[in-house]
Amino acid sequence: MRVGVLTGGGDCPGLNAVIRAIVRKGVQEYGYSFTGFRDGWRGPLDDATVRLDIPAVRGILPRGGTVLGSSRTNPLQAEDGVRCIRDTLARHGVDALITIGGEDTLGVAARLSGEHGIPCVGVPKTIDNDLSATDYTFGFDTAVGIATEAIDRLHTTAESHMRVLVVEVMGRHAGWIALHSGLAGGANVILIPEQRFDVDQVCSWVTSRFRASYAPIVVVAEGAVPRDGDMVLKDGTLDSFGHVRLSGIGEWLAKQIEKRTGKEARTTVLGHVQRGGTPSAFDRWLATRFGLHAIDAVRDGDFGTMVALRGTDIVRVPLGEATARLKTVDPKLYAEVGVFFG
Amino acid sequence: MRVGVLTGGGDCPGLNAVIRAIVRKGVQEYGYSFTGFRDGWRGPLDDATVRLDIPAVRGILPRGGTVLGSSRTNPLQAEDGVRCIRDTLARHGVDALITIGGEDTLGVAARLSGEHGIPCVGVPKTIDNDLSATDYTFGFDTAVGIATEAIDRLHTTAESHMRVLVVEVMGRHAGWIALHSGLAGGANVILIPEQRFDVDQVCSWVTSRFRASYAPIVVVAEGAVPRDGDMVLKDGTLDSFGHVRLSGIGEWLAKQIEKRTGKEARTTVLGHVQRGGTPSAFDRWLATRFGLHAIDAVRDGDFGTMVALRGTDIVRVPLGEATARLKTVDPKLYAEVGVFFG
Amino acid sequence: MRVGVLTGGGDCPGLNAVIRAIVRKGVQEYGYSFTGFRDGWRGPLDDATVRLDIPAVRGILPRGGTVLGSSRTNPLQAEDGVRCIRDTLARHGVDALITIGGEDTLGVAARLSGEHGIPCVGVPKTIDNDLSATDYTFGFDTAVGIATEAIDRLHTTAESHMRVLVVEVMGRHAGWIALHSGLAGGANVILIPEQRFDVDQVCSWVTSRFRASYAPIVVVAEGAVPRDGDMVLKDGTLDSFGHVRLSGIGEWLAKQIEKRTGKEARTTVLGHVQRGGTPSAFDRWLATRFGLHAIDAVRDGDFGTMVALRGTDIVRVPLGEATARLKTVDPKLYAEVGVFFG
Amino acid sequence: MRVGVLTGGGDCPGLNAVIRAIVRKGVQEYGYSFTGFRDGWRGPLDDATVRLDIPAVRGILPRGGTVLGSSRTNPLQAEDGVRCIRDTLARHGVDALITIGGEDTLGVAARLSGEHGIPCVGVPKTIDNDLSATDYTFGFDTAVGIATEAIDRLHTTAESHMRVLVVEVMGRHAGWIALHSGLAGGANVILIPEQRFDVDQVCSWVTSRFRASYAPIVVVAEGAVPRDGDMVLKDGTLDSFGHVRLSGIGEWLAKQIEKRTGKEARTTVLGHVQRGGTPSAFDRWLATRFGLHAIDAVRDGDFGTMVALRGTDIVRVPLGEATARLKTVDPKLYAEVGVFFG
Repeated sequence: MRVGVLTGGGDCPGLNAVIRAIVRKGVQEYGYSFTGFRDGWRGPLDDATVRLDIPAVRGILPRGGTVLGSSRTNPLQAEDGVRCIRDTLARHGVDALITIGGEDTLGVAARLSGEHGIPCVGVPKTIDNDLSATDYTFGFDTAVGIATEAIDRLHTTAESHMRVLVVEVMGRHAGWIALHSGLAGGANVILIPEQRFDVDQVCSWVTSRFRASYAPIVVVAEGAVPRDGDMVLKDGTLDSFGHVRLSGIGEWLAKQIEKRTGKEARTTVLGHVQRGGTPSAFDRWLATRFGLHAIDAVRDGDFGTMVALRGTDIVRVPLGEATARLKTVDPKLYAEVGVFFG
Repeated sequence: MRVGVLTGGGDCPGLNAVIRAIVRKGVQEYGYSFTGFRDGWRGPLDDATVRLDIPAVRGILPRGGTVLGSSRTNPLQAEDGVRCIRDTLARHGVDALITIGGEDTLGVAARLSGEHGIPCVGVPKTIDNDLSATDYTFGFDTAVGIATEAIDRLHTTAESHMRVLVVEVMGRHAGWIALHSGLAGGANVILIPEQRFDVDQVCSWVTSRFRASYAPIVVVAEGAVPRDGDMVLKDGTLDSFGHVRLSGIGEWLAKQIEKRTGKEARTTVLGHVQRGGTPSAFDRWLATRFGLHAIDAVRDGDFGTMVALRGTDIVRVPLGEATARLKTVDPKLYAEVGVFFG
Repeated sequence: MRVGVLTGGGDCPGLNAVIRAIVRKGVQEYGYSFTGFRDGWRGPLDDATVRLDIPAVRGILPRGGTVLGSSRTNPLQAEDGVRCIRDTLARHGVDALITIGGEDTLGVAARLSGEHGIPCVGVPKTIDNDLSATDYTFGFDTAVGIATEAIDRLHTTAESHMRVLVVEVMGRHAGWIALHSGLAGGANVILIPEQRFDVDQVCSWVTSRFRASYAPIVVVAEGAVPRDGDMVLKDGTLDSFGHVRLSGIGEWLAKQIEKRTGKEARTTVLGHVQRGGTPSAFDRWLATRFGLHAIDAVRDGDFGTMVALRGTDIVRVPLGEATARLKTVDPKLYAEVGVFFG
Repeated sequence: MRVGVLTGGGDCPGLNAVIRAIVRKGVQEYGYSFTGFRDGWRGPLDDATVRLDIPAVRGILPRGGTVLGSSRTNPLQAEDGVRCIRDTLARHGVDALITIGGEDTLGVAARLSGEHGIPCVGVPKTIDNDLSATDYTFGFDTAVGIATEAIDRLHTTAESHMRVLVVEVMGRHAGWIALHSGLAGGANVILIPEQRFDVDQVCSWVTSRFRASYAPIVVVAEGAVPRDGDMVLKDGTLDSFGHVRLSGIGEWLAKQIEKRTGKEARTTVLGHVQRGGTPSAFDRWLATRFGLHAIDAVRDGDFGTMVALRGTDIVRVPLGEATARLKTVDPKLYAEVGVFFG
């Protein structure tokens, strides 16, 4: 039995832990051989491979990133993509494919498995924690930890200067990182993509915080949008050449707060720091268990499935399920956390 | 409505986060007043109280320990303990009591609530993660993170000198910290209280690791016991005056490994460092949510219950359930992790 | 003897350690009393004070920021500023003033001491490490540590996606943070304000790094300027409304690299995270010793001086000296580090 | 020109940074080739070598330990040791040797260079910071940082239970780690090898701390000795079979404190955790600069010298000087810190 492995999409702490667990168990317990495909779906498409055996996975557990490289290549959009993949797998004698990735990568795996009979097992990966089929995905805990540590640090600078500090964290479509790190960091306002925010309400929380003689921290997901969403585009500072990418919602919000409350406001955009570096212990645990269970699914011939966390158990769910629905923040949970605003 | 709060047993990162959440939501949403009892059950027994209001919980979220102090006092063993407690609560006009603690503290709360009609709500706390009613307890993730970081550091010193490094972590009756930190830290051997270990097997793993030109890390829970458990007591280095406390299983094991394999072995006992300091983001999140749900249980008059984590939900379970059974490591889970041994 | 203490300018990890050391030694060894002035020079100007005694400094050693608050108020620009200060000091019976701050704060202290006979002792503070009279200032080591950790994390994301990562760190006029963190983080290019950089040279380093199959990290001080400095202003993306504050040199440089090398480039701006949070052990040591020696200078009546680090010794230098000359990166040192570029 | 490199003695964060800097500058600027010798002096003695070129030093900057391995082998005690070394160097065409190590390793280098004409350049390495020729050695800052973080954590557990916490840190002959981490961690008692301590004085500090309603932290260097030093040996808990190694001064002191003050006391022995793992930014900076200057000394033919830090400069000193005198804590400095005791 020879198993192919690839990692697709944005990088995420824990990818290497998954790869190591797959190879260690596959080789030691089942006697499998492995072929690593380079840079996500580009690997089987272009026949780009990496040696993948026990020595190749030594020492990678604590390392961020992925030794296989990653890309956002979609083989279903390439001419003859499916045939290319099938040929590459045949050429290397690969009997099954473990694909580690997010919505896009797993969506391809679901179709290759379901429509084209290529035996795939999936491992969910999204730093944003927005896959509905699993309680948590690895990488998320690391990102929340990094953002929380940054917020901890910003408290002292906010207090010393009685300034508003706006922290922009990852989360285009789901506010999980903002919610968890904002709560853990003791933020006074948390804004998420799931609920449009009212700038005046934000300013009123900010002001009430100052009245208590403490300086506010505002955590905002990059995908958060004000109630009158058009104002971001109409606003003088933002209306030309790709400003949203340039300065983002955090910068925009800080300016609004300054203008409306008369208080100094500063922005910190955490950016890629949140997705790099060594995974937290939680993420190494989860990623390793995902890897161990993925290779078990291969051994069981349970293709078209994906491993997932439910409580403290690792279960298997249909690959299609993983990509069916974005897991967004429940309004009830957001309301629960709202007690700390202001 | 006036609510009493106390924290009992060993300290644990996240206690302050629970206290803060209870008070913030209780005051802001329900208009409750609070009385803090000092040093666990000693507080209501000796009428030792601490002011507990919004200013008292400012800034405590990231701080380890407990602003209420803690103790292992058992009021049921004190003369007239129940009456004393009832009198103290009456004197302060306390209508309900939130008790944050482990098996012992919650066991008392269960009996006070069940047999004596004192309205109690419990919040589970054990750094060892060994309460069966909840998926996780706060403090555990922090402890695992600290132990993992230590193991990460020990790898480099093990490799540089080709030495065995034995790391003794917390866990008298359950091996959760050893299992999680050992896995996350890439340990080569993990020994837990749930399964007696065979010293010769350990030595054979150690030897096989050296053959791969890497130095082994052995993680051992403080409560782990060798197959012939008597040997620890009979062994020359350990047979007099309280040696187990003095040097522990880690030191004993290192000596055995040195003797049997001829390799140098060193021990690190992590000790209290594992339970101190700022809680991890995960623990702040869990502790805060436990606090928010505990005050909700009080508002609902749902006494005799305890909050618990199930998947990503906070639920309520009978207080008695929490203390009914120790949650130990499932042999299947231990076997799953065994692929990394040696 | 009553001593006033104030902290001015931007906040900096270690300020609280200085304050604690001053008060602990002043009270315990010399029997002095203290008056804390709030928000830098605003305190003595507006008679805004804070209680400052042993209980007030308990537990502040590991905390970032300053319990006295800070501001950039310049009393020499206020009407009757000097008289106001003199009056406030007299009103509180303050016999000497310890001023903890950077160029501006100490410049005022130098003039108050030299021209107006107000007995001042200075403690140098600049996170940028750009004061020529001292080997190091506290806060700098913490900032370098935070930036280095961020760079460590960015390596994995750069490698996984074969992207250029541009990290903008603090340093308007001096490149110390960029130089130290860039070197410690294994950056491939480090750009500092002291030497104008050539964008083509940067791109050639970036390209050569990719040829070695590794992705480059570019560390750029916020005050770094390209050789043809005007291009930043003339460049289409940057020529209107305060762009430098908006997007900064990091963003600009990333765009240039993308345009010229065809490689994807991403920017991380570390911002205020670098100056907040708990000080490193080194900074706590330095700040504490500065505090101990500052109160000794007061006891010796050695006014108009500032404490400074020389090797491992704390010495006193004239206050004027501290502000005379900016300590910039020596071209020889920059050249020394250049071996790692590309 | 071919240069040999070896690392001897205990491992120390920063060794890899030195090696990398030597090789990067040697290859890129001077066109040298390198031979890595394995496990300190054992390498040239047994002709055990490691490939050492640019690819071999990629990615090692942030890694603790040493890629060359280390040992305490003393070639001057081996039969024909000097001839063996000379032969090995000749066989590989090695023209000069850079030896990175402490007192022992550099002592050998001094004699090989001075008496036997083998061209050596030294790089000082001691985690204990006890070499008199240099202001600081790399590894020390990392060790102090780890110990300080541990002490920070122990504060909360001490306070929550009103217990004494004794922390034993490295330092057999010099108390630098105890002094720096104790000061940075806000310890209430710091005991160093340089000054015998009085147990009653320690107990009186402990008691006075409890009176202020705070729990004490006692930091003790492993080599600290009570005034009546014999009591450790005579004491019932310690008088047989190598107990000092077994339980150490920390454990002994905790028992004494319990006995004399009636307060609970707990011990944490940090052990090897202090010398492992990634080096701090300060240590990476220092180690890298040491490496750059060591290869410059080779190029200059300046053999028999060692690089050293003086203020912010790297200088060269005679190799003999490095090992001439242990740098211990100055009684005046210890007295300065004493203001925080009790």
